[in-house]
Amino acid sequence: MREIYLVTTTTASEDDARKLAHAAVEERLAACAQIFAIESVYVWEGVKQEREWRVEFKTTDERAQGLMRRLMELHPYEVPELVATRLAGASEAYAAWVIDTVL
Amino acid sequence: MREIYLVTTTTASEDDARKLAHAAVEERLAACAQIFAIESVYVWEGVKQEREWRVEFKTTDERAQGLMRRLMELHPYEVPELVATRLAGASEAYAAWVIDTVL
Amino acid sequence: MREIYLVTTTTASEDDARKLAHAAVEERLAACAQIFAIESVYVWEGVKQEREWRVEFKTTDERAQGLMRRLMELHPYEVPELVATRLAGASEAYAAWVIDTVL
Repeated sequence: MREIYLVTTTTASEDDARKLAHAAVEERLAACAQIFAIESVYVWEGVKQEREWRVEFKTTDERAQGLMRRLMELHPYEVPELVATRLAGASEAYAAWVIDTVL
Repeated sequence: MREIYLVTTTTASEDDARKLAHAAVEERLAACAQIFAIESVYVWEGVKQEREWRVEFKTTDERAQGLMRRLMELHPYEVPELVATRLAGASEAYAAWVIDTVL
Repeated sequence: MREIYLVTTTTASEDDARKLAHAAVEERLAACAQIFAIESVYVWEGVKQEREWRVEFKTTDERAQGLMRRLMELHPYEVPELVATRLAGASEAYAAWVIDTVL
Protein backbone atom coordinates (compact mmCIF):
# COMPACT_ATOMS: atom_id res chain seq x y z
CA MET A 1 0.00 0.00 0.00
CA ARG A 2 1.43 3.41 -0.96
CA GLU A 3 2.52 5.58 1.96
CA ILE A 4 1.60 9.24 2.38
CA TYR A 5 4.29 11.83 2.95
CA LEU A 6 4.12 15.40 4.16
CA VAL A 7 6.62 17.71 2.42
CA THR A 8 7.17 21.10 4.05
CA THR A 9 8.77 24.35 2.93
CA THR A 10 8.60 28.03 3.95
CA THR A 11 8.53 31.26 1.91
CA ALA A 12 9.04 34.97 2.59
CA SER A 13 5.62 35.96 1.21
CA GLU A 14 2.09 34.57 1.05
CA ASP A 15 2.18 35.13 -2.68
CA ASP A 16 5.22 32.89 -3.09
CA ALA A 17 3.57 30.28 -0.86
CA ARG A 18 0.48 30.26 -3.08
CA LYS A 19 2.58 30.02 -6.24
CA LEU A 20 4.38 26.92 -4.96
CA ALA A 21 1.11 25.42 -3.69
CA HIS A 22 -0.68 25.91 -7.01
CA ALA A 23 2.26 24.68 -9.10
CA ALA A 24 2.61 21.43 -7.13
CA VAL A 25 -1.14 20.75 -7.03
CA GLU A 26 -1.77 21.69 -10.68
CA GLU A 27 1.16 19.48 -11.77
CA ARG A 28 -0.30 16.71 -9.56
CA LEU A 29 2.92 16.30 -7.62
CA ALA A 30 0.81 16.84 -4.48
CA ALA A 31 -2.87 16.25 -3.73
CA CYS A 32 -3.12 19.35 -1.56
CA ALA A 33 -1.11 22.11 0.05
CA GLN A 34 -1.84 23.92 3.30
CA ILE A 35 -0.52 27.42 3.96
CA PHE A 36 -0.26 29.39 7.20
CA ALA A 37 1.76 32.30 8.59
CA ILE A 38 4.60 31.70 11.05
CA GLU A 39 7.34 33.70 12.72
CA SER A 40 10.78 32.25 12.12
CA VAL A 41 13.80 32.66 14.38
CA TYR A 42 16.93 31.24 12.75
CA VAL A 43 20.68 31.52 12.33
CA TRP A 44 21.85 33.10 9.05
CA GLU A 45 24.71 35.55 9.50
CA GLY A 46 23.52 36.13 13.08
CA VAL A 47 20.10 35.39 14.62
CA LYS A 48 17.15 36.60 12.51
CA GLN A 49 13.44 36.90 13.41
CA GLU A 50 11.15 37.18 10.39
CA ARG A 51 7.60 36.55 9.24
CA GLU A 52 7.33 33.60 6.87
CA TRP A 53 4.64 31.34 5.40
CA ARG A 54 4.74 27.58 5.79
CA VAL A 55 3.46 25.34 2.99
CA GLU A 56 2.73 21.68 3.77
CA PHE A 57 2.09 19.30 0.86
CA LYS A 58 0.52 15.82 0.96
CA THR A 59 2.03 13.45 -1.53
CA THR A 60 3.01 9.77 -1.89
CA ASP A 61 6.26 8.03 -1.05
CA GLU A 62 6.87 7.65 -4.82
CA ARG A 63 6.43 11.39 -5.54
CA ALA A 64 8.08 12.99 -2.48
CA GLN A 65 11.54 13.30 -4.07
CA GLY A 66 10.12 14.61 -7.36
CA LEU A 67 8.03 17.18 -5.48
CA MET A 68 11.06 18.36 -3.49
CA ARG A 69 13.13 18.69 -6.70
CA ARG A 70 10.36 20.72 -8.35
CA LEU A 71 10.01 22.98 -5.28
CA MET A 72 13.79 23.52 -5.33
CA GLU A 73 13.55 24.65 -8.99
CA LEU A 74 10.68 27.05 -8.25
CA HIS A 75 11.78 28.34 -4.85
CA PRO A 76 13.13 31.91 -4.60
CA TYR A 77 15.43 31.00 -1.68
CA GLU A 78 18.99 29.77 -2.21
CA VAL A 79 18.64 27.13 0.57
CA PRO A 80 14.91 26.65 1.26
CA GLU A 81 13.56 24.44 4.03
CA LEU A 82 12.60 21.20 2.27
CA VAL A 83 11.77 18.37 4.68
CA ALA A 84 9.62 15.26 4.50
CA THR A 85 7.67 13.45 7.20
CA ARG A 86 6.31 9.94 6.74
CA LEU A 87 2.72 9.65 7.95
CA ALA A 88 2.06 6.56 10.07
CA GLY A 89 -1.50 6.13 8.80
CA ALA A 90 -4.58 7.65 7.24
CA SER A 91 -8.23 6.77 6.79
CA GLU A 92 -8.70 4.49 3.79
CA ALA A 93 -10.84 6.98 1.90
CA TYR A 94 -8.41 9.84 2.44
CA ALA A 95 -5.35 7.74 1.52
CA ALA A 96 -7.11 6.57 -1.66
CA TRP A 97 -7.91 10.18 -2.56
CA VAL A 98 -4.26 11.26 -2.17
CA ILE A 99 -2.98 8.28 -4.13
CA ASP A 100 -5.52 8.76 -6.95
CA THR A 101 -4.86 12.50 -7.14
CA VAL A 102 -1.05 12.44 -7.29
CA LEU A 103 0.25 11.41 -10.75
CA MET B 1 5.93 2.15 26.91
CA ARG B 2 2.82 3.54 25.13
CA GLU B 3 3.58 5.67 22.08
CA ILE B 4 2.01 9.06 21.39
CA TYR B 5 0.31 9.74 18.09
CA LEU B 6 -0.75 12.96 16.44
CA VAL B 7 -4.06 12.67 14.55
CA THR B 8 -4.89 15.52 12.17
CA THR B 9 -8.02 16.65 10.37
CA THR B 10 -9.32 19.86 8.78
CA THR B 11 -12.75 21.55 8.78
CA ALA B 12 -14.49 24.30 6.80
CA SER B 13 -15.30 26.38 9.90
CA GLU B 14 -13.74 27.21 13.26
CA ASP B 15 -16.99 26.16 14.88
CA ASP B 16 -16.75 22.65 13.39
CA ALA B 17 -13.11 22.47 14.45
CA ARG B 18 -14.06 23.29 18.05
CA LYS B 19 -16.92 20.77 18.02
CA LEU B 20 -14.56 17.96 16.97
CA ALA B 21 -11.90 19.10 19.44
CA HIS B 22 -14.33 19.19 22.39
CA ALA B 23 -15.98 15.87 21.49
CA ALA B 24 -12.65 14.01 21.28
CA VAL B 25 -11.26 15.57 24.46
CA GLU B 26 -14.49 15.23 26.48
CA GLU B 27 -14.81 11.58 25.41
CA ARG B 28 -11.12 11.13 26.40
CA LEU B 29 -10.15 9.81 22.97
CA ALA B 30 -7.51 12.56 22.93
CA ALA B 31 -5.66 14.41 25.70
CA CYS B 32 -5.69 17.68 23.79
CA ALA B 33 -6.53 19.27 20.46
CA GLN B 34 -4.88 22.25 18.82
CA ILE B 35 -6.71 24.39 16.27
CA PHE B 36 -5.39 26.96 13.80
CA ALA B 37 -6.49 28.56 10.53
CA ILE B 38 -4.92 27.51 7.22
CA GLU B 39 -5.45 28.13 3.53
CA SER B 40 -5.94 24.94 1.55
CA VAL B 41 -5.16 24.44 -2.13
CA TYR B 42 -6.40 21.08 -3.35
CA VAL B 43 -7.80 19.07 -6.24
CA TRP B 44 -11.54 18.35 -6.05
CA GLU B 45 -13.31 18.81 -9.39
CA GLY B 46 -10.55 21.26 -10.40
CA VAL B 47 -8.10 23.14 -8.18
CA LYS B 48 -9.70 24.85 -5.18
CA GLN B 49 -8.28 27.45 -2.73
CA GLU B 50 -10.22 27.76 0.50
CA ARG B 51 -9.87 28.78 4.13
CA GLU B 52 -9.94 25.82 6.50
CA TRP B 53 -9.12 25.04 10.14
CA ARG B 54 -6.66 22.33 11.10
CA VAL B 55 -7.24 20.30 14.27
CA GLU B 56 -4.34 18.26 15.67
CA PHE B 57 -5.08 15.74 18.43
CA LYS B 58 -2.60 14.03 20.77
CA THR B 59 -3.55 10.49 21.60
CA THR B 60 -1.96 7.06 22.21
CA ASP B 61 -1.10 4.29 19.77
CA GLU B 62 -3.98 2.26 21.28
CA ARG B 63 -6.59 5.02 20.77
CA ALA B 64 -5.53 6.47 17.39
CA GLN B 65 -7.79 4.22 15.31
CA GLY B 66 -10.77 4.72 17.64
CA LEU B 67 -10.26 8.50 17.55
CA MET B 68 -10.14 8.48 13.72
CA ARG B 69 -13.34 6.38 13.56
CA ARG B 70 -15.12 8.78 15.94
CA LEU B 71 -13.94 11.82 13.94
CA MET B 72 -15.21 10.15 10.75
CA GLU B 73 -18.66 9.74 12.40
CA LEU B 74 -18.77 13.37 13.54
CA HIS B 75 -17.14 15.03 10.52
CA PRO B 76 -19.33 17.06 8.13
CA TYR B 77 -17.09 16.23 5.13
CA GLU B 78 -17.68 13.18 2.96
CA VAL B 79 -13.92 12.44 2.73
CA PRO B 80 -12.17 14.39 5.51
CA GLU B 81 -8.41 14.52 5.96
CA LEU B 82 -7.66 11.95 8.68
CA VAL B 83 -3.96 11.22 9.07
CA ALA B 84 -1.78 9.99 11.91
CA THR B 85 1.85 10.72 12.72
CA ARG B 86 3.87 8.68 15.21
CA LEU B 87 5.86 10.88 17.57
CA ALA B 88 9.45 9.73 18.07
CA GLY B 89 9.58 10.86 21.69
CA ALA B 90 8.26 13.09 24.44
CA SER B 91 9.33 14.27 27.87
CA GLU B 92 8.41 11.67 30.51
CA ALA B 93 6.04 13.97 32.35
CA TYR B 94 4.19 14.99 29.17
CA ALA B 95 3.95 11.41 27.88
CA ALA B 96 2.59 10.28 31.26
CA TRP B 97 -0.01 13.07 31.17
CA VAL B 98 -1.23 12.04 27.68
CA ILE B 99 -1.36 8.36 28.63
CA ASP B 100 -3.20 9.04 31.91
CA THR B 101 -5.67 11.40 30.24
CA VAL B 102 -6.69 9.22 27.27
CA LEU B 103 -9.10 6.45 28.29
CA MET C 1 24.16 10.73 8.03
CA ARG C 2 22.73 12.77 10.92
CA GLU C 3 18.93 12.80 11.15
CA ILE C 4 16.83 15.91 11.62
CA TYR C 5 14.29 16.11 14.40
CA LEU C 6 11.41 18.46 15.02
CA VAL C 7 10.92 19.33 18.71
CA THR C 8 7.63 21.01 19.61
CA THR C 9 6.35 22.87 22.65
CA THR C 10 3.57 25.38 23.41
CA THR C 11 3.46 28.51 25.59
CA ALA C 12 0.77 30.76 27.07
CA SER C 13 2.17 33.94 25.47
CA GLU C 14 3.93 34.99 22.27
CA ASP C 15 6.59 36.59 24.41
CA ASP C 16 7.39 33.28 26.13
CA ALA C 17 7.44 31.57 22.74
CA ARG C 18 9.98 34.07 21.44
CA LYS C 19 12.13 33.73 24.56
CA LEU C 20 12.35 29.94 24.14
CA ALA C 21 12.97 30.29 20.39
CA HIS C 22 15.81 32.79 20.84
CA ALA C 23 17.41 30.87 23.70
CA ALA C 24 17.52 27.59 21.76
CA VAL C 25 18.76 29.20 18.54
CA GLU C 26 21.31 31.49 20.24
CA GLU C 27 22.66 28.50 22.23
CA ARG C 28 22.78 26.55 18.93
CA LEU C 29 20.64 23.73 20.31
CA ALA C 30 18.36 24.32 17.30
CA ALA C 31 19.00 25.74 13.83
CA CYS C 32 15.63 27.48 13.73
CA ALA C 33 12.34 27.86 15.55
CA GLN C 34 8.94 28.56 14.04
CA ILE C 35 6.16 30.19 16.08
CA PHE C 36 2.43 30.44 15.40
CA ALA C 37 -0.77 31.00 17.39
CA ILE C 38 -3.12 28.09 18.14
CA GLU C 39 -6.24 27.45 20.20
CA SER C 40 -5.81 24.57 22.62
CA VAL C 41 -8.59 22.38 24.01
CA TYR C 42 -7.28 20.08 26.74
CA VAL C 43 -8.02 18.26 29.97
CA TRP C 44 -6.56 19.83 33.12
CA GLU C 45 -8.97 19.86 36.06
CA GLY C 46 -11.84 19.80 33.54
CA VAL C 47 -11.82 20.71 29.82
CA LYS C 48 -10.08 24.01 29.05
CA GLN C 49 -10.03 26.09 25.83
CA GLU C 50 -7.21 28.62 25.66
CA ARG C 51 -5.07 30.57 23.23
CA GLU C 52 -1.48 29.31 23.08
CA TRP C 53 1.60 29.65 20.86
CA ARG C 54 3.30 26.66 19.31
CA VAL C 55 7.09 26.66 18.86
CA GLU C 56 8.63 24.10 16.52
CA PHE C 57 12.43 23.65 16.56
CA LYS C 58 14.63 21.91 13.96
CA THR C 59 17.55 20.11 15.50
CA THR C 60 19.60 16.91 15.04
CA ASP C 61 19.08 13.44 16.50
CA GLU C 62 22.15 14.08 18.71
CA ARG C 63 20.80 17.36 20.15
CA ALA C 64 17.07 16.58 20.51
CA GLN C 65 17.31 15.34 24.11
CA GLY C 66 19.57 18.22 25.14
CA LEU C 67 17.18 20.73 23.55
CA MET C 68 14.20 19.21 25.38
CA ARG C 69 16.07 19.32 28.71
CA ARG C 70 16.98 23.00 28.15
CA LEU C 71 13.37 23.86 27.19
CA MET C 72 12.17 22.10 30.35
CA GLU C 73 14.54 24.30 32.43
CA LEU C 74 13.36 27.49 30.74
CA HIS C 75 9.66 26.69 30.39
CA PRO C 76 7.17 28.50 32.68
CA TYR C 77 4.76 25.53 32.66
CA GLU C 78 4.97 22.75 35.24
CA VAL C 79 4.29 20.05 32.58
CA PRO C 80 4.90 21.61 29.14
CA GLU C 81 4.24 19.81 25.88
CA LEU C 82 7.65 18.53 24.76
CA VAL C 83 7.47 16.11 21.84
CA ALA C 84 9.85 15.08 19.08
CA THR C 85 9.16 13.96 15.53
CA ARG C 86 11.78 12.28 13.36
CA LEU C 87 11.85 13.74 9.84
CA ALA C 88 12.02 11.10 7.10
CA GLY C 89 14.15 13.24 4.79
CA ALA C 90 15.34 16.68 3.75
CA SER C 91 17.08 18.27 0.79
CA GLU C 92 20.85 17.84 1.06
CA ALA C 93 21.52 21.56 1.29
CA TYR C 94 18.93 22.11 4.02
CA ALA C 95 20.05 19.08 6.04
CA ALA C 96 23.67 20.28 5.81
CA TRP C 97 22.63 23.73 7.02
CA VAL C 98 20.81 22.31 10.08
CA ILE C 99 23.71 19.98 10.93
CA ASP C 100 26.31 22.73 10.52
CA THR C 101 24.28 25.22 12.57
CA VAL C 102 23.47 23.03 15.59
CA LEU C 103 26.47 22.69 17.93
